[in-house]
Amino acid sequence: MSKKHYQGDSASYLAKKALFASTITVYGRNPVFEALADNTMNIIKLHLADSNKPSKAVAEMIALAEQRGIEIAYHDRKQLSRISKNSKQDQGVALDLHCPLYQSAKLLLEAPLPPRILAVDGVTNPQNLGMIIRSACAGRIDALLVPTSKGNTALSSLVIKASAGTLFKMPMYYCDDLAETLTAMKQRGADICTLSSYAKNTLFDYKAEDSAVYVLGNETDGVSKAVEAVATTGLRIPMSRGVESLNVAVTGALIAFLP
Amino acid sequence: MSKKHYQGDSASYLAKKALFASTITVYGRNPVFEALADNTMNIIKLHLADSNKPSKAVAEMIALAEQRGIEIAYHDRKQLSRISKNSKQDQGVALDLHCPLYQSAKLLLEAPLPPRILAVDGVTNPQNLGMIIRSACAGRIDALLVPTSKGNTALSSLVIKASAGTLFKMPMYYCDDLAETLTAMKQRGADICTLSSYAKNTLFDYKAEDSAVYVLGNETDGVSKAVEAVATTGLRIPMSRGVESLNVAVTGALIAFLP
Repeated sequence: MSKKHYQGDSASYLAKKALFASTITVYGRNPVFEALADNTMNIIKLHLADSNKPSKAVAEMIALAEQRGIEIAYHDRKQLSRISKNSKQDQGVALDLHCPLYQSAKLLLEAPLPPRILAVDGVTNPQNLGMIIRSACAGRIDALLVPTSKGNTALSSLVIKASAGTLFKMPMYYCDDLAETLTAMKQRGADICTLSSYAKNTLFDYKAEDSAVYVLGNETDGVSKAVEAVATTGLRIPMSRGVESLNVAVTGALIAFLP
Repeated sequence: MSKKHYQGDSASYLAKKALFASTITVYGRNPVFEALADNTMNIIKLHLADSNKPSKAVAEMIALAEQRGIEIAYHDRKQLSRISKNSKQDQGVALDLHCPLYQSAKLLLEAPLPPRILAVDGVTNPQNLGMIIRSACAGRIDALLVPTSKGNTALSSLVIKASAGTLFKMPMYYCDDLAETLTAMKQRGADICTLSSYAKNTLFDYKAEDSAVYVLGNETDGVSKAVEAVATTGLRIPMSRGVESLNVAVTGALIAFLP
């Protein structure tokens, strides 16, 4: 793409910037094909590696893209890896999806915080993240905070599938450094809540005065030390029969459906 | 095994029968090895096929079983298939685990029904079943009703794993015909509740007078027609943003943690 594109009028530049900011890139032949065949998906561009050998699968993707009027871009293998960010699994194909409700957490910090925010901190299983998005979307979560840093599962086809398509309906905000974003939210008066079996208050009794950010931690290790250091409120889920913890997606659902 | 075993005194016969009734058989080299290496597992017997070629994996299983004083039984390939009930995936090994809280639903019907029962009707994903068991165990479910008929995922190593070991702590009752068992429960005064987006009452408002049996249906098709015909009470989970359904394990968790 030539630089000229970015020298147009500023409205078009800003629109492009916003579009880029709310893009999710999926990769791999099956996920890309499925998205192309799904008319509810808002697709921006199909990316193909020059190194792809002619095959029925690739021909079908090209045909579908042409039929839907979707731009096709050809790249050398290295460029494609930079787009998919997963050269081992992209199989030479990637697809940019437009996700209008996926935006920078900076936007969330520009306005008064909504009452109930859910954040994930090191959730690694795409199935779990997809289920969390689905419950958050169906329940009473106003915004979902999703770090893009290492140790967090990326928004992929697996996540979209496990979210049952709700990923496109849920207001989601990305940030690079979760602890930093949570600190900014705390400064704006939000409670930063983590789950802890030793906490005095239960999840079900607690009411935030203003805003609450509930943080779900890693499947094995819970929330990170950096986030624990920012947390203001420990909450306990009372459990029977000596059970020590719940699945993280289940915990997310209990939070999402609090009255 | 000779018939003689079953001609002993009746107390020993009944004890054997009860043991058989509360046995879960897992299969496959990894699951069997993991269970053998886990000292918290109450193991009854290791089954090996005569057809297994000598290998490090099998030798390690035998060594672990001998070390723990676990009975080892050798079978021809056909017999082993009958034990594992999955000849395609058993890899010539199976393991009987004692699960004292896994019993016939007939026992549940012999006493007054507990207030909150959760039933699964056609849940096919072992991950979902394991998560349902874990939430039921940690929450306020008194008994879990698990049909063994076709179309229901069997209690396998995958289920044990997804249950995070809670399968051994949760009172679970098996039945062959769920609709029949639910009919008997209805006759004893229980409400048979299914989830429906068209229902007037919500899950969160409803209170059973006596006992409630909540039925979770298949991941795609919901509850079966036979069960729907027995149901007395439709309940709705209010959802935001036009979301139509929740993951079945999430629904199970919301039921398990009702106040």
